[in-house]
Amino acid sequence: MRAARFHGRGDIRVDQIDEPVCEEGQVKIRPAFVGICGSDLHEYLAGPIVVPTTPHALTGGQLPVTLGHEFSGTIEEVGQGVIGLKVGDRVAVKPNLSDGNCSSCAFGRPNCCRNLGFIGFSSNAGGLSDYVVVPAKHAISLPDTFPLDIGALVEPLTVAWHAVDRSPVQTAKTALVVGGGPIGLAVVQVLKARGVKTIIVAEVSDQRCVYAQTLGATHVFNPLTENVVANVRSLTGHAGADISFECSGVQAGFDTAMNGIRVRGTTVIVSLWEKKPVIDAFDVVSYEKHVLGAAICEDGDFEAVIDAIASGKINPEPMITSKIRMEEVEEKGFKALISERDKHVKILIDIEA
Amino acid sequence: MRAARFHGRGDIRVDQIDEPVCEEGQVKIRPAFVGICGSDLHEYLAGPIVVPTTPHALTGGQLPVTLGHEFSGTIEEVGQGVIGLKVGDRVAVKPNLSDGNCSSCAFGRPNCCRNLGFIGFSSNAGGLSDYVVVPAKHAISLPDTFPLDIGALVEPLTVAWHAVDRSPVQTAKTALVVGGGPIGLAVVQVLKARGVKTIIVAEVSDQRCVYAQTLGATHVFNPLTENVVANVRSLTGHAGADISFECSGVQAGFDTAMNGIRVRGTTVIVSLWEKKPVIDAFDVVSYEKHVLGAAICEDGDFEAVIDAIASGKINPEPMITSKIRMEEVEEKGFKALISERDKHVKILIDIEA
Repeated sequence: MRAARFHGRGDIRVDQIDEPVCEEGQVKIRPAFVGICGSDLHEYLAGPIVVPTTPHALTGGQLPVTLGHEFSGTIEEVGQGVIGLKVGDRVAVKPNLSDGNCSSCAFGRPNCCRNLGFIGFSSNAGGLSDYVVVPAKHAISLPDTFPLDIGALVEPLTVAWHAVDRSPVQTAKTALVVGGGPIGLAVVQVLKARGVKTIIVAEVSDQRCVYAQTLGATHVFNPLTENVVANVRSLTGHAGADISFECSGVQAGFDTAMNGIRVRGTTVIVSLWEKKPVIDAFDVVSYEKHVLGAAICEDGDFEAVIDAIASGKINPEPMITSKIRMEEVEEKGFKALISERDKHVKILIDIEA
Repeated sequence: MRAARFHGRGDIRVDQIDEPVCEEGQVKIRPAFVGICGSDLHEYLAGPIVVPTTPHALTGGQLPVTLGHEFSGTIEEVGQGVIGLKVGDRVAVKPNLSDGNCSSCAFGRPNCCRNLGFIGFSSNAGGLSDYVVVPAKHAISLPDTFPLDIGALVEPLTVAWHAVDRSPVQTAKTALVVGGGPIGLAVVQVLKARGVKTIIVAEVSDQRCVYAQTLGATHVFNPLTENVVANVRSLTGHAGADISFECSGVQAGFDTAMNGIRVRGTTVIVSLWEKKPVIDAFDVVSYEKHVLGAAICEDGDFEAVIDAIASGKINPEPMITSKIRMEEVEEKGFKALISERDKHVKILIDIEA
């Protein structure tokens, strides 16, 4: 069967590999649509970083790994002992794997596992292939009418769902989202679904500002030409936003997220970091600000996002800016996301096309 | 009357100034004992920083200012309209002043006022004088048997009380306090009073480690010779402390406070910063850590600390390492705290001595 595999920096190949065998407690999935994630791009440009070059503690997987951790598909085979899933079911896949033994898992936070693994990233099974076998509990059922292309957007939306859940969203009237990439735009949609009245986005690309408005932002500001913090303050009676989401991964974005919140406001960091940012600790003390991290998603987040989409509270369809074939994954996928960053939000690989 | 005034960097003089007049809503206090705070020392060494050189927005005060914001005393005169206080009452003074109008005050956080002022720091009235007049609501009654020297320790203890209140102390079994200066040691005492079982202190001075143990630390580690984070982990089943308190104001301390907490743990920053620290944002995300600031104290904290001392839950007497006369404030006060840092925790000026 075909599998798009990451062999190292700038090196993705569609290889022929053996079809996986579905064992007890597992399901075999025929992937339908697969999204390319910022972390995939990061590995392509600067990796291997997280992709293991020696056998992964949890999965045993190592370079070359099959990519694809944002995907939907149809169940092809059900392993012994699996209940609640049957052949033909549509599913989205929850990719993160945990060891169940570390101090994070013991504390009930498998999403923060000290040996965290990912289907389609740190294992030799991924969505960018004709078939993939995953533990049954990682296949989350989609309603029969749920479009499979939208199913590939569930995973990034769970990251946003979880990040919003980590914030005091219940009492928030104004939220600032810094960075309008796929995760920032997913956060915008979740904030809207959760009833936040004023959703402000700071994003350097004018095109992405347009996407942000389409997806639910009430105000968008380009920090290259506008003073975002001053604008947030003037929208909030000089106070600042109740909550902010750092989705840029750069110092200027972190500063905007922190300076844009009110006294006792909360900044949720969702972004991943190459270089550690500086924090204005004096400001954190003086205005009793809160900073916290949100990692991937937790149990129940897939179901919550699927419900929100099925009920029409979230309509992420505008996030899909291109659909390509597996053989085009490098040229029209990874390279397009690099050279035409502004144009794209989410590029999906249509496995059966 | 006498007043010890800050005239600029390295320049404190005991001046003769006019006795203040007690007006409506005010009380005139005869200060008894006055502590020297780290912020006073900071101004002496590197100021004026916070001490205003032009009229303060709130107090109108400016250089030279009368020092002394940690103090106790006896009421000498009661202004018109003051209820609940009478001549002869013993009081501790809540020094922070707020404008009541800014976005922080509007949000119910006067301790984060954008025009924050301090009796004895940014006003021309301070505890280091024969008499001081303050708004009546800033004079907090002490029980009749409450020693006045201990009364001068109430203010720094309220800072610690508030910082501990800002943390999820109710569910914390293990706390890490980084920095064993007066505020760190005050935090230790409050943690003990609040029932935290394991209180670990990281402090570079062996003498201060001894003070920490005297005041309630169950474990003390000197980061110059020991791996504090590894020791905290081994004391907590590899998890890390539930809460930590950054009381050092330096990068290494911040790193220890952040690395020493468990998944979803909380670091409370209590320290003030000259240089902004770097934060490991990837670690914050990966382990969903929380960072928050605590500023001074809130309404009710003075009363809570006074109750805790009166009931024996806190015995801060060992914090007092020296008592001096007002005329000795520079030589045996400020200069002793600089040259004999290890030897001292809190030096009190006995105003009537």
